[in-house]
Parts: sequence; C-alpha cells; structure tokens
Amino acid sequence: MTVAVLAGGVGAARFLRGLVLAVPPTEVTAIVNTADDTVMHGLSISPDLDTVTYTLAGAIDPERGWGLVDESWRAMEALGRYAEVRPDGSEAAPTWFNLGDRDLATHFYRTARLREGATLTEVTAEIARAWEVAVELLPMTDDRFRTVVRLAGPPEEEVPFQDYFVGRRHSVPVSGVRFDDDGARTTAAVEAALDGAEAIVVAPSNPIVSIGPIRALPGVDGRLAARRERVVAVSPIVGGAALKGPADRMMRELGMTPSVAGVAELYAPIAGTLVVDTVDAGLADDVEAAGMRCVVTPSVMTTADDARSLARACLDAVSSAG
Amino acid sequence: MTVAVLAGGVGAARFLRGLVLAVPPTEVTAIVNTADDTVMHGLSISPDLDTVTYTLAGAIDPERGWGLVDESWRAMEALGRYAEVRPDGSEAAPTWFNLGDRDLATHFYRTARLREGATLTEVTAEIARAWEVAVELLPMTDDRFRTVVRLAGPPEEEVPFQDYFVGRRHSVPVSGVRFDDDGARTTAAVEAALDGAEAIVVAPSNPIVSIGPIRALPGVDGRLAARRERVVAVSPIVGGAALKGPADRMMRELGMTPSVAGVAELYAPIAGTLVVDTVDAGLADDVEAAGMRCVVTPSVMTTADDARSLARACLDAVSSAG
Repeated sequence: MTVAVLAGGVGAARFLRGLVLAVPPTEVTAIVNTADDTVMHGLSISPDLDTVTYTLAGAIDPERGWGLVDESWRAMEALGRYAEVRPDGSEAAPTWFNLGDRDLATHFYRTARLREGATLTEVTAEIARAWEVAVELLPMTDDRFRTVVRLAGPPEEEVPFQDYFVGRRHSVPVSGVRFDDDGARTTAAVEAALDGAEAIVVAPSNPIVSIGPIRALPGVDGRLAARRERVVAVSPIVGGAALKGPADRMMRELGMTPSVAGVAELYAPIAGTLVVDTVDAGLADDVEAAGMRCVVTPSVMTTADDARSLARACLDAVSSAG
Repeated sequence: MTVAVLAGGVGAARFLRGLVLAVPPTEVTAIVNTADDTVMHGLSISPDLDTVTYTLAGAIDPERGWGLVDESWRAMEALGRYAEVRPDGSEAAPTWFNLGDRDLATHFYRTARLREGATLTEVTAEIARAWEVAVELLPMTDDRFRTVVRLAGPPEEEVPFQDYFVGRRHSVPVSGVRFDDDGARTTAAVEAALDGAEAIVVAPSNPIVSIGPIRALPGVDGRLAARRERVVAVSPIVGGAALKGPADRMMRELGMTPSVAGVAELYAPIAGTLVVDTVDAGLADDVEAAGMRCVVTPSVMTTADDARSLARACLDAVSSAG
C-alpha cells in the first residue's frame, strides 16, 4: 500500500518510524514542511527534513528528539567568543540556534549543493541516500517559503519562525502566523505523491506551522480534498494539549479550540478521518459533528511499536473508508 | 616606531609574533593577503587572516602551524558520509579542506557578518578584538580577489589556489599564476598604513602567491616604491629552499631563480633592503647587484625570541637607511 505522509518534525518523524514497520519503506513518501527552514551563519538549514531523516536512520538523539546521537557542540561553544564583539543590531553569531558538530556536515552538504544549483528535492534525496533511508523524502517545495510569527507583545512584532520557536523557546504569546511565500509552488514529485498514493496521512504535527505551510501551497488542499476519503489525519492534540511544541497554545491564541474537535474543524475539508487518542474518546461526537469520521486508538508514540500500531490504525481507516 | 607588514600566512604570522615583542603591538599594522580566500560549504574562509589572528592570539596549533590548538574534527569526519552520494561533477562535501570544529566558529561569524553587509575590514577587526589581538589586522582588499594557479599538467589546467595548495598539497608543477581580481582595489586603511608607517616590512611569505597579490592591487607598488628606503623585505628563501610551502619550486617553475638573489630581483623595485639568513651570506653581493642593500642575520624563526631578533634587525635596517 503506497502511503504519502504530510510531515512536520518530531511527531511526524516518530510516526514515520512506525509506518515503515507497517509497510515497506519504499512504499512511503514523506512530504515535509520546509517553512521552518532558515539560514544561519550562511548555512542552509532544514530542521524538519533533518529530523525526519535522522529519525528514520536511527541516528536521532532520543532524548532531545532532534539532532544526532553522540553529538558534540564545539563549534557553537567557540562561537560564544564572537557574540561579545558583534556590533549593535548585528545578528551574527547567534548561539541560541544550537548546531551540533556532526550535524553541521549535513548543512555544509546541503548549502554547497544548493549553491551548485541543485534543487532542495535533489539534495534531500542525496542526504537520505547517505543515511540509507529508503523512504522517499520530499521537501514540500523547492522555493523559498518562510513562516513569519506575529508575537502578541507588547510590543506586537513579527519575527522569523526560528526566532520564535528556538530563540524564544515558543514560550511567548502569538497573535498571528503568516507565510512569506512569494509565489512558491510545490513540486511535481509532491503532486505525484498526493495524486497517486493509496493512502495519505496527515502526521501528528502542528496543524498551523507544520501542516499549515504544506496546505498553503497552491493546489495542495484541492488535491487532498479531491481524495478526501483516502486522507486520514492524526490529531496532534491529546487531552487538550500538544504532546510536544506549542500547537495547543498557538491554537488557543489564534482563536481555535485546542482539542480534537478544533483539529477536526481544521482538517475536515481535506481528510475523511481523524485519529484521536483514547483519552479523547468522549469527544468523538464533536469530531463527527465537525464532519470527520473519528477513529479512537492509543496515539502517544512512546515506543516504535506504539508508532507501528498507530500507523496500522491509520491505514485501516483508509482501507475501510475506501 | 609604527610598522606596516605585508603578510601572507604562517611565515608572516611568526614574524609578527616576534615584531610585537620588539615594538608595542598597537604600533603594528598587518596588511594581509586575501587572495587565498575561498568559499567552502557556503562559508567565507580567509586562511591567512586566520593564521595571523590565531598566531598573535597564541591560539595557533604549534605543530600544524595553522588552525587552533585543542581542535577537534567532528564536522569534517561527518562530512565523509556525503562524499559518497554527491553526483558526478559536484564539488560539494570536499573533506580535503579540513576545517576544525572550533575554527568553524570564525567562519560562521565572518560569513554572517559579510552577509549583513559588513566589509571584510570591519569583520577582521571584530574577530581580532574577540581574540584580544592588539595589532591592527587589515585585509589587503574588501573586494573579491582570487589567485588562480595554472598546473603544468598534462593536461595543463587552471585551478583555484586552494585546489592547488591544499587539495593537491602544492606538490604538482605550476606553469603560471594569475589573479582573478575583477577591478579589486585596496582600502583606505591599507593606503594610510603604507603612507604613514615609519617602517614597512615585507614578511618572509611566498613572494608570488602571498605578497604578489598585495602588490598587484592598484597603487600598492607605487606607494612602496615612493617609500623604498623605509621598506625592508625578509627573504622567504633560505639556502635555496622555502622554509615552508612551495615558494622555491614555484619560483623555479615560473622561470625565476629560487635564491635570495632571485628574491632581490622581485623586491628591488619596492624595497631598499633585503634581509637574508646567515647561510646565504655568500650571496650578499648578488643581492646588492640586484639593487638592494643586504642585511645578513639569522632568519629562521624557531622560537619567538628568534622572531624578535629578526624583527629587530629589520627595524634597525630601516633606521640606518633613513
């Protein structure tokens, strides 16, 4: 069964790790958010792509959930020296965006290849091959696409996503999110995956800043809506809270309901089924009222086996819908 | 006594370390070759500036002569993985240009500041301040200026300097050197140093690819010639051989004589005095015949004290000439 997965970072990576235990990895395509991508020190950084790659390679640091195991931080430690001499207003030498020494190699390779004129799709495939990842990993776009977060303040101000997410540890209130996309388009490979996959899973990622950017690309929502019965979403909200990251607070701050019902309202146009955790069984009626079938199953992925069961439940939901 | 020094990498750095024991460092300006600069993995790298900075900071690795003490190579080791997946013809992920983990911080800072629009002169001053280096360090230009080396082959081919110097360990014959300078100009700070210093020293660096680029900038040779009696050069050739690097072979391959006499021919237009090592005392007449006064003194800098004595001899030569 060929499966396409709309993916953000950590949650999606864990889901994918379970999915490849349920179906052959070569039948899986991950369409990964790149709106968190940034340039630091001149290096092109794609956090969600790397999290997915490293996780599928079994090389992710299990405690942090991002970056590589057996990592060291010598370059970043050395960068501290320069923070003291940078002129007022300069953003050079930020050490809040922590890049491990081994992880740097990935950014070096990506940066050099992009400078050579390769597309992010090409480079991502090369990086996946280097890590012997058999899942097809596709950036959602080869174009520049950036999430901009409006902080509630005071003063209210717009900052790049990573300034909010890492720089301020996503701990400040948000009053808006917009995408600086400048006419970005998705890729032929993404379109083929969306059109051809026998099942499409929206991973348990932040619906606003991880799945939102993918959906914002021209044609994506239309393609999903056209195949709605084959699309199943996994709620990233469990018991009213995000398992990881600021999805719950963001939803509340932006006027949505941080619950599986709120998630259902967001996904009803594009997905026939919402998978929710057993703790949310009581809200199944609200999900159905929002226009989605509701599948209740344990969705907290503590082990790879948890993830496999969750993936299995998603695929079963599509099979029974079709 | 204010002193300006035309500087390449290792030899110049050692000389400068001795010079600051002979005169206050705040009276010294180093005008540093940037024709070896390169971009690797998207990072702006200035090898000679870094060698001078780290040496004056007492942080250079004493055995290698370049890079930092107490260095690790985790990022480069990790890069090896990507060499195997790069497409034919791609130069991404070269591991022959070895960048230490701690050293990377310098390239990160430089790259980020240049992207912000700072000049290399400004960034170099900031980096020097971070390392508490009191010598004024000036890049020879803020513009792009690159040495291109023609390899004798066969086949004869042109390669960027670092491909020759590091990639091929400067062990292949050279049939030409040219500068890809595209109208580069020196800076007001360099001109002020050349015009104002009470003494000017041409450090014992490669006359073709380290000092040559500085001299190739418009106006530099004219300024030096106008103050020729205050300019003293130190021969990088001792007993017919370069102490470090390919200067002797390069001179021979390009039709020059790899001796202090050959050096004198190169420097006679711009410097009144050539300092040569005691092993070359017998060639003093040849130096004079080429049109330079010859000062004979131990010039091999094994210790900082050797370097101080050599610097002292250079300053004395200018004093007695003036």
